[in-house]
Amino acid sequence: MKNNQQQNQMANAIRFLAIDAIEKANSGHPGLPMGAADIATVLYTKFLAHDPQKPHWPNRDRFVLSAGHGSMLLYALLYLSGYEDIGIEDLKNFRQLGAKLAGHPEYGHVAGVETTTGPLGQGLANAVGMALGERLQNARFGDLINHYTYALVGDGCLMEGISQEALSLAGHLKLHKLIVLWDDNNISIDGEISLADSTDQIARFKASGWNTLKVDGHDQAAIACAIETARHSDKPTLIACKTTIGFGAPNKAGTNKVHGAPLGAREIAETRIALGWEAEPFVIPADILDNWRLAGLNAAKKRQKWEAELDALPVSERVEFERFMRGDLVGGFDSAVDAYKQKLVEKRSVVATRKASEMALEVINEVVLETIGGSADLTGSNNTKSSQMKSISANDFSGRYLHYGIREHAMGAIMNGLALHGGFIPYGGTFLCFSDYMRSAMRLSSLMGLRVIYVMTHDSIGLGEDGPTHQPVEHLASLRAMPNHFVFRPADSMETVECWQLALKARKTPSTLALSRQNLPLLRQEYEEENLCMLGAYELLTASDEPKVTLFASGSELQIAVQAHAVLEEKGIPTRVVSVPCFELFFQQSYSYQRALIGAAPIKIAIEAAVRQGWDRFIGWNGIFIGMDSFGVSGTGDDLYAHFGITCENVVATAEKELGKIKEKSIK
Amino acid sequence: MKNNQQQNQMANAIRFLAIDAIEKANSGHPGLPMGAADIATVLYTKFLAHDPQKPHWPNRDRFVLSAGHGSMLLYALLYLSGYEDIGIEDLKNFRQLGAKLAGHPEYGHVAGVETTTGPLGQGLANAVGMALGERLQNARFGDLINHYTYALVGDGCLMEGISQEALSLAGHLKLHKLIVLWDDNNISIDGEISLADSTDQIARFKASGWNTLKVDGHDQAAIACAIETARHSDKPTLIACKTTIGFGAPNKAGTNKVHGAPLGAREIAETRIALGWEAEPFVIPADILDNWRLAGLNAAKKRQKWEAELDALPVSERVEFERFMRGDLVGGFDSAVDAYKQKLVEKRSVVATRKASEMALEVINEVVLETIGGSADLTGSNNTKSSQMKSISANDFSGRYLHYGIREHAMGAIMNGLALHGGFIPYGGTFLCFSDYMRSAMRLSSLMGLRVIYVMTHDSIGLGEDGPTHQPVEHLASLRAMPNHFVFRPADSMETVECWQLALKARKTPSTLALSRQNLPLLRQEYEEENLCMLGAYELLTASDEPKVTLFASGSELQIAVQAHAVLEEKGIPTRVVSVPCFELFFQQSYSYQRALIGAAPIKIAIEAAVRQGWDRFIGWNGIFIGMDSFGVSGTGDDLYAHFGITCENVVATAEKELGKIKEKSIK
Repeated sequence: MKNNQQQNQMANAIRFLAIDAIEKANSGHPGLPMGAADIATVLYTKFLAHDPQKPHWPNRDRFVLSAGHGSMLLYALLYLSGYEDIGIEDLKNFRQLGAKLAGHPEYGHVAGVETTTGPLGQGLANAVGMALGERLQNARFGDLINHYTYALVGDGCLMEGISQEALSLAGHLKLHKLIVLWDDNNISIDGEISLADSTDQIARFKASGWNTLKVDGHDQAAIACAIETARHSDKPTLIACKTTIGFGAPNKAGTNKVHGAPLGAREIAETRIALGWEAEPFVIPADILDNWRLAGLNAAKKRQKWEAELDALPVSERVEFERFMRGDLVGGFDSAVDAYKQKLVEKRSVVATRKASEMALEVINEVVLETIGGSADLTGSNNTKSSQMKSISANDFSGRYLHYGIREHAMGAIMNGLALHGGFIPYGGTFLCFSDYMRSAMRLSSLMGLRVIYVMTHDSIGLGEDGPTHQPVEHLASLRAMPNHFVFRPADSMETVECWQLALKARKTPSTLALSRQNLPLLRQEYEEENLCMLGAYELLTASDEPKVTLFASGSELQIAVQAHAVLEEKGIPTRVVSVPCFELFFQQSYSYQRALIGAAPIKIAIEAAVRQGWDRFIGWNGIFIGMDSFGVSGTGDDLYAHFGITCENVVATAEKELGKIKEKSIK
Repeated sequence: MKNNQQQNQMANAIRFLAIDAIEKANSGHPGLPMGAADIATVLYTKFLAHDPQKPHWPNRDRFVLSAGHGSMLLYALLYLSGYEDIGIEDLKNFRQLGAKLAGHPEYGHVAGVETTTGPLGQGLANAVGMALGERLQNARFGDLINHYTYALVGDGCLMEGISQEALSLAGHLKLHKLIVLWDDNNISIDGEISLADSTDQIARFKASGWNTLKVDGHDQAAIACAIETARHSDKPTLIACKTTIGFGAPNKAGTNKVHGAPLGAREIAETRIALGWEAEPFVIPADILDNWRLAGLNAAKKRQKWEAELDALPVSERVEFERFMRGDLVGGFDSAVDAYKQKLVEKRSVVATRKASEMALEVINEVVLETIGGSADLTGSNNTKSSQMKSISANDFSGRYLHYGIREHAMGAIMNGLALHGGFIPYGGTFLCFSDYMRSAMRLSSLMGLRVIYVMTHDSIGLGEDGPTHQPVEHLASLRAMPNHFVFRPADSMETVECWQLALKARKTPSTLALSRQNLPLLRQEYEEENLCMLGAYELLTASDEPKVTLFASGSELQIAVQAHAVLEEKGIPTRVVSVPCFELFFQQSYSYQRALIGAAPIKIAIEAAVRQGWDRFIGWNGIFIGMDSFGVSGTGDDLYAHFGITCENVVATAEKELGKIKEKSIK
């Protein structure tokens, strides 16, 4: 007998809540909650600084269930610890439509779920982000923030490539308050791990500078000892906890049969006998529940102590801390942007929008101190490091700029972790084409509604010689397809700062800024107090008479529309130009605004150096699209624009040809 | 002096071709070709089995430049070795529009480029696929195929998560003929590697079962010794070659300044002096070129010997081998499919399309022996393993099914490697939602035009309780946006086998099969010899009279359209149903077919449990879309369809309401 009776029963409480809820739902994953129950019991009853009554307390320890399919482990822990969000009825409604307790842990549904998990490996990288956030806050506010971050990961998390990106960065940064508990159960869905992997995980983590420990994952005293040791390490720690998946189920434990399906009545009956559990389904014997609730109350004492520390803070510091944690922008933000917009009009610089983004960041980062910039090893190309930003390193967390390394996927997930931690607005850069590497993380930003800003430069064939592997063609459409994600494609330095302003103000929506490598003229030459990009699309140039042609364009192609406007007007063809920096914001406008802006010109042409998909909502299916319908090729940017016919000449010729057709028809 | 004069000059020939071509293009990456020139010289002149005259010889060694930005290294090697595809004029046109030599190595542009690289880490995983292909062919055809696979990787490749997925699988499978040369130069774009990483790569590879070696990457004798040792290992080998990036450039070598920009005239002049190189730009002194060409001729002897082995093969085996390598399908394929289609009509099974896919694979895998199936640890859910398929393991490569583990990204790139190797049609499964994890590899399948088949099950909210992290919403649109990629979404078991047939016949286009978790009735109840899915979209049900309503649908929503058709016709509203299994094929049909199929019914409704983007080309911007405009939620599949209004009732009610509006207008 490894554990005493009380320890066993506390863990069994988790096991049976999971068994019962999954059986009732007839859907779910009992294997992990049963296997990891001892680990979780130790963590929640002996170590985790949390307060079920004040679950959002900023200096709480973070716990991330990276193996999100084991959601019932987390829900059981929250219920047992006394989180008010979860009653026994909620457990009975697990996985049902409209219920609080979704199939996988969903951020924002119930307190105590620190992040949405399920896509494997993401949670581990989120935890790295949270642990980084802790160090950054600690450097800013001292021990007001000095918590631990725990993650429970499965074999799947560790096989995903994102885990390598995340763990190697965590090791490099010596995030010593990060403790990863590996549910080392040797089983994945297809069968034994040995079917597909034979990695020595301990050696692998060591290779990236981690402290590593190994324990019997069903020996609560050993687990406690390991966690205690880990808490005093000067490196992040991996604790390999050898467990039996579905622990306690006499026939299914230790096999893939218990991973993702209810146990079934017979196996449940035998499990009850094997574990000595006599209570009815969904009933936790009072003494066991009392022990759990007591542990919850004990854990809360740390919060009470912390409140006193907060009270002792100088007022100005406290105000700043609380503003950071609320996520409110500083008062002077808008006026700083306005002043900068006025300067832009004076300067009329011809710059790439990636450079315009850097110029905007010079202004923004001066006043918005909670931004944490970074790039996946393309700092000079993404123009993400403004002059105020010092690099973050293992020895100095007072900086605001992170060299993420060539780790796009982890960058996205770490930014999610920073945003979830609170107190930061993370932004990170790579080439737009390589958004493909981090799409899973971007999707989770959108699903969770996090203010994370993706700075994606080199946004079209305009990047030139690097060729089709680096030239995005389908990426704008594919990102616009994602719910709750703003894709901004500004056309000049004015639109660039406006888009930045909108991205920073979008509290519940992540943004992608698609920025050019090549220089672009200032097209918005008048100062407007209003942020025109807020409308998603707006009329940049009017027609001299009843419009015959409307040209829609975004980003670097807006200048082509402007040139074509001049030529067409010169030829006596009344033409409008509509700038479209953000589809999503445009489709949020009133129907009447949308109809009016799209207008009734007989010829509608959209110009974007990308695929057509999505533009039909502006130009209709009979509208004309001038852009790409294949991958790009290698060559200078100018040559490529000419090669693919994305030119003023082609726009003018196409418009005239179409006008000719219409005239011909009307004569007939 | 590490190397003798001849060795140095042979390597310098690479360096100066790279320097000159990049300078002339005023664009490119000299750092890698200069740094890795010694490694490449040893590999190409002493080890690589290749024949510049017959570059596609099946048993050649494969060389993958995973760090594709160093393309000039590869182009120089091919030119120097005597590949006829590349003349000195081609080197002078490097990176120009229409030139053979693109900015990054592009598969299919010139012989000797085994794969398209540039997106980091992909090449390493492609090489794992090629090395796997070698073992699989070896198990089938004996030593007719027994080549080595070499990959040159940079720090960037090793920091990308995909590298971990690929190397851990290679170690697990003991792919001992895979030799990875790491250009260990300590520099990335942002600066020194120590800015962002401190991983002990040797220890990391060892942890996954690799043989590891360390050499001075500028000592040709040491490099040769290491490669020779690696060739006799029973494990895959990593050779860490310590190099100086931009070796030879007196002021820029060893810094990030030499990574991605031309050296400039002054630095070139100094480099010439430093390396003792006196020839004019683009001129290789005759003795040096002769040595290179001689090495090329020597390497070719292995091919000549191999031809004799091929001739000695029994005719039937040779015919089969050559058919495999050409990629032609076996003669009996179509008739097997036809016979199965006839059976389907008799059986009328109600099955999920993922199950229908397994049924189709039972037929296909029986005759198409070159398929290599697999799944990213979801074999039972993706239904990818048909009964004939035995699992591949390190001890037995005669199987045809690979447990890729929880490694979607590597799975995609390894499948690309298998397809590039020749002799295989790889397919691999995961959930559609997790296509996000492998999108970069899918894009490269499309860009290279490879016959790789992605089996993506659980293709909508219909998967139910696992919730929004697992429910694809934007994935169909985002994959349809990708050029040269067929997205098939079959509606029943008949369409499923037809889509499989099309995917197998698409020699130059990868396919995604989006398949349901939930059961679906057989809607195509008549046997048709023609593959109707070939049209991309076709009329499934006609209207009883001049159509008032056309319903378009794909996959699991086609049954809703069929139900609504019955109700609307019953109500006297003439209604057509159009099945849309593949947008891309439909848009390849004649304009007249497209117009006729879309038709002129006043009410057009598209039904798909996904976002609208892309459907406007069928229904017009005023058309009605019944689907999703947000992420999904957790609940049973049936509850979710009802919750989001994707039901027959809603289709009927919407059609009637729209008809009412039209009548009202006509009365006015």
